[in-house]
Amino acid sequence: MKDVSTLHWIGEVDGFLRMIDQTKLPVELVELDCRDAETVWEAIKSLRVRGAPAIGVAAAYGVCLGIQSAVDNDETSFYKRLDETTEYLAASRPTAVNLFWALERMKRTAALLHGKPTAEIAAALLAEARAIHEEDRRMCRAIGRHGAVLLPDGCGVLTHCNAGGLATSDYGTALAVIFAAAESGKTLHVYADETRPLLQGARLTTWELQQRGIDTTLICDNMAAQVMRERRIQAVVVGADRIAANGDAANKIGTYGAALLAAAHNIPFYVAAPSSTFDLSISSGDDIPIEQRDPREVTHGFGRQTAPDGVKVYNPAFDVTPAELISAIICEHGLIRPVNREMIAEMFKQNDSQ
Amino acid sequence: MKDVSTLHWIGEVDGFLRMIDQTKLPVELVELDCRDAETVWEAIKSLRVRGAPAIGVAAAYGVCLGIQSAVDNDETSFYKRLDETTEYLAASRPTAVNLFWALERMKRTAALLHGKPTAEIAAALLAEARAIHEEDRRMCRAIGRHGAVLLPDGCGVLTHCNAGGLATSDYGTALAVIFAAAESGKTLHVYADETRPLLQGARLTTWELQQRGIDTTLICDNMAAQVMRERRIQAVVVGADRIAANGDAANKIGTYGAALLAAAHNIPFYVAAPSSTFDLSISSGDDIPIEQRDPREVTHGFGRQTAPDGVKVYNPAFDVTPAELISAIICEHGLIRPVNREMIAEMFKQNDSQ
Repeated sequence: MKDVSTLHWIGEVDGFLRMIDQTKLPVELVELDCRDAETVWEAIKSLRVRGAPAIGVAAAYGVCLGIQSAVDNDETSFYKRLDETTEYLAASRPTAVNLFWALERMKRTAALLHGKPTAEIAAALLAEARAIHEEDRRMCRAIGRHGAVLLPDGCGVLTHCNAGGLATSDYGTALAVIFAAAESGKTLHVYADETRPLLQGARLTTWELQQRGIDTTLICDNMAAQVMRERRIQAVVVGADRIAANGDAANKIGTYGAALLAAAHNIPFYVAAPSSTFDLSISSGDDIPIEQRDPREVTHGFGRQTAPDGVKVYNPAFDVTPAELISAIICEHGLIRPVNREMIAEMFKQNDSQ
Repeated sequence: MKDVSTLHWIGEVDGFLRMIDQTKLPVELVELDCRDAETVWEAIKSLRVRGAPAIGVAAAYGVCLGIQSAVDNDETSFYKRLDETTEYLAASRPTAVNLFWALERMKRTAALLHGKPTAEIAAALLAEARAIHEEDRRMCRAIGRHGAVLLPDGCGVLTHCNAGGLATSDYGTALAVIFAAAESGKTLHVYADETRPLLQGARLTTWELQQRGIDTTLICDNMAAQVMRERRIQAVVVGADRIAANGDAANKIGTYGAALLAAAHNIPFYVAAPSSTFDLSISSGDDIPIEQRDPREVTHGFGRQTAPDGVKVYNPAFDVTPAELISAIICEHGLIRPVNREMIAEMFKQNDSQ
């Protein structure tokens, strides 16, 4: 399969970050070479790179770029540049949790090396960025491996939005399951919901699947029920933005509807997400606030006005699928099923004690 | 409430047809005055007027326009012009059943008047066109009246696609129910699915509701489940393209999904359609073929490419909602409920014998 990783570090400490410019997809595959922190900042800001894990990795490499021209400076000036760079990159997308987490890791790495030669600190920072990248890659592979067994050979799979390689360091979460099943020799047919209003499914998911040679059909979101009725779907696999302690899962708007349709047709519904997606401080999905987004995403979504002036719009960013509609959660530690508070607590207990 | 009828005949035999140019909606309200059959032909062809009943009425008036300049001719030449006009208009949208039906009625009317003065025949043709228009208007009003009782005061209503006044002579089928309930003094809040791929809900339904002063919120199709979960919807009302003898109803793609979501939330699901929509020669929905439409409606729907080159697309024009998911069918003769073969047969028996 073709490598369509969204991020690559090219070279050593004096190297650069090459990324797929996702704003140009699916019409063109354009790679952007980032040789300074400003270019990374702009890429995150403008959604040239998107998806929580991918943003974190890009920011970590952005730190390496920011300090390149300060390696010959004295220690004070070097650390000053480091602080400026992390602060600067943190402002590129102020709501991205992975961004702050990755920048924090970079700062901690440097803080432990006070007094060492700056070239050594710079090398350690690149090693840390690569570690963040590699950990994310391993997480994707583990999710793929655990989930692949759930997809029977020859099956049809529905997915919603983009939980693929473009959002992560490697081959995604929901799409990892599909890619791993395909790599193990299974034939799959994937149906991708276009995912209104922002069309991540149409623009990104179909492109990734196509690049990896997987048989893919694009549908509008409202066609999923009919496709299920025609017995073309044997499994639904989606990602998640946040999972409560009881297994209720927040994900892109439309996921809950897809789960209900799957239940009505007796089709298993799987959520693929790393353990970092769980927020155990949230008891159930009822406590997850639903973010409302700009009405213009719906009324002017394609550069053309498609609804009357002044019409009210309801545009929730995501919805919550209750645990009882989820057949299994696929995380890097394995499968959680049935999905309930006890099984989730057990998974965390086992893996925290390792 | 504001009159937003899509078609008006202005004047007498020498008058003209004024129509709303639906291709300009929802951004502009442009009225087109048709003073010859060619303008009507082009309007039907280019979807300036759409919706089966509205096309039939427009074509009938188009016949009146076509013969205007032949009223002073001899009878042979007058009838020749009539035949040319009906044949010409029939070619504007070759799959529209109402178009042929309306043109046939016009020809039959003229055929009964052979030997009469051409001015008298022309007057009879205008009277026939007005009768077709008026019958459709009465049908809409009757559907509205029968359906309005199903909507409780203060309720939220979901509708899909456009089964409104723009498609008919008056105030539609599904929307007639909403308009009639509002006219009876009930407060309603309507959620309109945008209805991908062609966005009839976003472009036309919200506009009609807005024009009539009804509180309206536009949503993407994939948001309906979440809106239901938030208890914002107490009834779903949709139209139908074709209803089988057992009550299975074909309608715009996405309707079946909406019916399943309504069932999952214990929300009643109503189909509003005139008795002419029933095709009793079709035993069940399994016998209704599903038309596939141009993939570009999905991939290039807004003048911009939103999916990769060469991606496969599944684009069914409609789906079939099984009778068991339909709480009632609202037709001009009253309510059919429960929806089953026996109740439908009974309704036709009663009204055929009147």
